Amino acid sequence: MTAEESGAPEAGHAEPQHGYSPNKDNYAKRLRRVEGQVRGIAKMIDEDKYCIDVLTQISAVNSALQSVALALLDEHLGHCVSHAVAVGGDEAEQKLAEASAAIARLVRS
Amino acid sequence: MTAEESGAPEAGHAEPQHGYSPNKDNYAKRLRRVEGQVRGIAKMIDEDKYCIDVLTQISAVNSALQSVALALLDEHLGHCVSHAVAVGGDEAEQKLAEASAAIARLVRS
Amino acid sequence: MTAEESGAPEAGHAEPQHGYSPNKDNYAKRLRRVEGQVRGIAKMIDEDKYCIDVLTQISAVNSALQSVALALLDEHLGHCVSHAVAVGGDEAEQKLAEASAAIARLVRS
Amino acid sequence: MTAEESGAPEAGHAEPQHGYSPNKDNYAKRLRRVEGQVRGIAKMIDEDKYCIDVLTQISAVNSALQSVALALLDEHLGHCVSHAVAVGGDEAEQKLAEASAAIARLVRS
Repeated sequence: MTAEESGAPEAGHAEPQHGYSPNKDNYAKRLRRVEGQVRGIAKMIDEDKYCIDVLTQISAVNSALQSVALALLDEHLGHCVSHAVAVGGDEAEQKLAEASAAIARLVRS
Repeated sequence: MTAEESGAPEAGHAEPQHGYSPNKDNYAKRLRRVEGQVRGIAKMIDEDKYCIDVLTQISAVNSALQSVALALLDEHLGHCVSHAVAVGGDEAEQKLAEASAAIARLVRS
Repeated sequence: MTAEESGAPEAGHAEPQHGYSPNKDNYAKRLRRVEGQVRGIAKMIDEDKYCIDVLTQISAVNSALQSVALALLDEHLGHCVSHAVAVGGDEAEQKLAEASAAIARLVRS
Repeated sequence: MTAEESGAPEAGHAEPQHGYSPNKDNYAKRLRRVEGQVRGIAKMIDEDKYCIDVLTQISAVNSALQSVALALLDEHLGHCVSHAVAVGGDEAEQKLAEASAAIARLVRS
């Protein structure tokens, strides 16, 4: 694998391979559930549900999204970043910097 | 206003009054946008988009939901909790304990 | 109690009364422990300890400080904010806005 | 470099090399400042300072510690994890799993 390929794995590939690709169905399912939860929160507000109960649901959605993010990140480090590191050079530097920036956004969001 | 009314404002009221009630449209709009963002994240994964870009979107959704939660909490403290405190007694204690627990969940989620 | 007194409880008082005042010893003890933990982290780095172990300690300190903050906030809502709300007026508005801003800082830090 | 060396870099080394080693002085300085801030918070409580001001300081300490943690993690990924990945095998797997667990603790703390 060349650095170019690992840098833009989807370009011109019949089967793009991200770390998360084998688990796409699992992510799709988790995100559909999150989407339903968000719709449920909107409904709770529309029906004047008690504020504290709305907040509990929001905390639940944030936890669910954090779990998705941590799983994606784990697979990204184990595939995309690892491939770039094995290749070395600028590609590796860039992937590592990118991953660190994404981690910082997660920690601070 | 009695403690019972402030404790369960929706029961038997034609127009339930929560702190957030006057801003329901605003919340509905923000949550519809969040729902669209979550659907967008599912689509990104389905289309094998780059993992870091997915993570950026998840951080954005978490920030948006936190803002909604903080706004709801602010209105809850200013209305529901304040009414209970003005009435005093067990009602006040309970509302304050409930608000603190919700804050802890938000801080830790 | 006047609004001025609840607004600046320490001014001219022999025994200032904050929500947390009765538990000062407990907070002092918890913060001494946190201070020791931070010194321990500095020592770990000085002794070239393994990075992951340092990160574990930092997460522990953050959790300990969050617990202190949530306990202080709980007492602040139950005393200072509640007094201001009972008095009403600008004082109440200001205390509520201040508490919401502090909650937002905690959620986002 | 062998997997054993990257796995336990301090064992039997005159100059242990962690990712953070070249910046030890910088971390020492930042942690001394954090330690002083924690001592300052204890003093604020001892002197009955206003609760909101104490909370502001706690948020500042948490942010400072998060920045230290993110910098350590960035260097850990760029050195220790990258070396293990270059070597491959169980060592790489273990380092990646360990890093993901540390990231999860940071995001959730």
